[in-house]
Amino acid sequence: MSEVLRLPKGFKASSLEVGVRYEGRLDVGLIASDPPAAAAACFTENAIKAAPVRIGIERFLEKMGQVELSALIVNSGNANACTGRQGLESTQLILDALSSALGVSGDQVLMSSTGVIGEPLPHEKIIRAIPGLVDGLSEEGLLGVAQAILTTDTREKVVSRKIAMERGEATMVGIAKGAGMIAPKMAAPHATMLAFILTDAAVEHETLQRLLSMAVDASFNRITVDGDTSTNDTVFLLANGASGTAPLDMASGPDLERFKEALFGVSKELARMIVRDGEGATKVVEIVVRGGWSLEEARDCAVAIANSPLVKTAFFGEDPNWGRIVAAAGKAGHPLIEEALTLWIGDVLLVTNGEFQGKDQEARAHEVMKRDEFTVTLEIGTGDYQYSMLTTDLTKDYVSINADYRS
Amino acid sequence: MSEVLRLPKGFKASSLEVGVRYEGRLDVGLIASDPPAAAAACFTENAIKAAPVRIGIERFLEKMGQVELSALIVNSGNANACTGRQGLESTQLILDALSSALGVSGDQVLMSSTGVIGEPLPHEKIIRAIPGLVDGLSEEGLLGVAQAILTTDTREKVVSRKIAMERGEATMVGIAKGAGMIAPKMAAPHATMLAFILTDAAVEHETLQRLLSMAVDASFNRITVDGDTSTNDTVFLLANGASGTAPLDMASGPDLERFKEALFGVSKELARMIVRDGEGATKVVEIVVRGGWSLEEARDCAVAIANSPLVKTAFFGEDPNWGRIVAAAGKAGHPLIEEALTLWIGDVLLVTNGEFQGKDQEARAHEVMKRDEFTVTLEIGTGDYQYSMLTTDLTKDYVSINADYRS
Repeated sequence: MSEVLRLPKGFKASSLEVGVRYEGRLDVGLIASDPPAAAAACFTENAIKAAPVRIGIERFLEKMGQVELSALIVNSGNANACTGRQGLESTQLILDALSSALGVSGDQVLMSSTGVIGEPLPHEKIIRAIPGLVDGLSEEGLLGVAQAILTTDTREKVVSRKIAMERGEATMVGIAKGAGMIAPKMAAPHATMLAFILTDAAVEHETLQRLLSMAVDASFNRITVDGDTSTNDTVFLLANGASGTAPLDMASGPDLERFKEALFGVSKELARMIVRDGEGATKVVEIVVRGGWSLEEARDCAVAIANSPLVKTAFFGEDPNWGRIVAAAGKAGHPLIEEALTLWIGDVLLVTNGEFQGKDQEARAHEVMKRDEFTVTLEIGTGDYQYSMLTTDLTKDYVSINADYRS
Repeated sequence: MSEVLRLPKGFKASSLEVGVRYEGRLDVGLIASDPPAAAAACFTENAIKAAPVRIGIERFLEKMGQVELSALIVNSGNANACTGRQGLESTQLILDALSSALGVSGDQVLMSSTGVIGEPLPHEKIIRAIPGLVDGLSEEGLLGVAQAILTTDTREKVVSRKIAMERGEATMVGIAKGAGMIAPKMAAPHATMLAFILTDAAVEHETLQRLLSMAVDASFNRITVDGDTSTNDTVFLLANGASGTAPLDMASGPDLERFKEALFGVSKELARMIVRDGEGATKVVEIVVRGGWSLEEARDCAVAIANSPLVKTAFFGEDPNWGRIVAAAGKAGHPLIEEALTLWIGDVLLVTNGEFQGKDQEARAHEVMKRDEFTVTLEIGTGDYQYSMLTTDLTKDYVSINADYRS
């Protein structure tokens, strides 16, 4: 089997067609770890949080962050969001059944859900599937889970890394879903989609959470498809130590650096996969804003450009409409000066100190925009701060997908 | 001729096909007032401001708000934004030629522009047209100006009111354009499109500005098409006193009330026309958020819902996808509580205290959403604050219009 799908030591996974919303597709997945794994998590900062997110946040608060997990169960087809007390009960019933089936403590299992908002989760269907999921657990089961979490995604998203450490090798593998309702929320620990990152390295809890928060801030929090932040966004990072490598904490030096590099790499690659698979998207565009006098200035301008419908439709039209880019930055609430703006599309200089570089350069920029991926770089001044975002174009297919979603 | 097109006393208008960007359409308009009119204005708060906006703001600052105008000239086809020093010179050359042709002081004329950003304004074409525009000034000329300011708009927008006052009758007429790059910016005096409101009432300067700022905040600042704030947005209010009615100030009592009512009415009606003519829009939806504990809470939730691509595509799909509405409110940054949310679509109760009211109500809400206009009301708590926004659906035509704009 493919290298990319091998689970780190101690992890197994399985998936089933349960018919949560649609028949004939994998829609429930189980990831289990023996020994139990140290867990870190980032949850959505949307004020309206799905039931499994509320239960997850409560668990991390109760345990002061010291959460050990034996299993994560996840379903697509239904977000179990805006479902009130009934929704919390549904999640709890599933978690109870799961911990019984696995013979582990009730506080060693958690859940994620994704799909339609505001409809009751058919928890009986999922509970009935638990024995089968547990029986089906295998070291080859991750691809099925990667498929079971998809909603409007068109393909599964899996990334893996080997981490060479002083006392041997650890492995990290991540899966993710997310195509619409994708937008950055900056304050870690908060995320913007569903991702599960598993490693057999051993990492102390606080270090694990700190690294995950940083990685999420540098990856999942810097992508946008439509500027809508979901009620269910969650990233889990599980580290079970089964590789036998030395336990890491913030003082672990080179090993910690290698682990961090792997985690950032996996997170960024999954984030880019989400953007590439954005609803209706035909292009991935990196927006780089530099020369800001503060991080906020650079960030707010980058986010405003990345979310502007007029900029995103111009990307779709392959139109180097630099006025829209500049106008989008201008609405971000910072005192930009037109005469200080310099803009590149790819490596084509389009505007220098506010001055348009002419039709020839525009034609070259148009050529760059025909590519599937390109970069827009806006220099807003001579400050030291830079921020970048990954975004998509806005297409007719985005409208079709979302106007038809529930029909 | 139609009542709606009669200019208030002392005003004349004219328009011409100048070929600023396209041939064969009215694209320059002139509005003149004799006697000169007291002027108030609201300009965009986008940091990147078009040349005519920069000159307008400077004029109001220089004159400490005491601006008297004999004429406004306006063009479509070119925004004269992001055009640097050259753009400022172009506007100034046009204003100089206009004041000479009219025989008025240079500080009695101002300009507005709308159209493509980042291309030099062909000022010679406009200057050559000025004698013809001046010769053509007539009391029947307003409809032509209303047509000359259109860009992606599909129809002209004209509203008029009679104002019965103690000493006779005044008239107010407003024209507007705006279809895309429409978004609210709250801090008056700032606006979000192009509108010219003319009245033959007499109003003291400070009162005129204060009333306009309030009217803009209650109308043009509460509409959104795509969340993009333009570099050129401007509202002018000119009052020339030619009706002979008593001069109004903040102490004018009932006459002031009647004037205010007319101004708010004209502003709101023009704002609604802009939304109805929003790029690709098939529906006008009023978003009402009430029960907020602060105005900011109600406003931020209303704006988040009104700008959410997922909500707007659901409107297009006539899908009562209340989860998206609630999720959009949830991302506005306020601590909403799911169990406190109550939602109506039209008069159909869909969610009560976080609880979905069932498929029958959903079917009724779907019927409401088939209408061209409907209201979404979200109660977020038991506070006293309410805010409303007018928005559109997001359609495939929006994408077409903006992906093809410059081609």
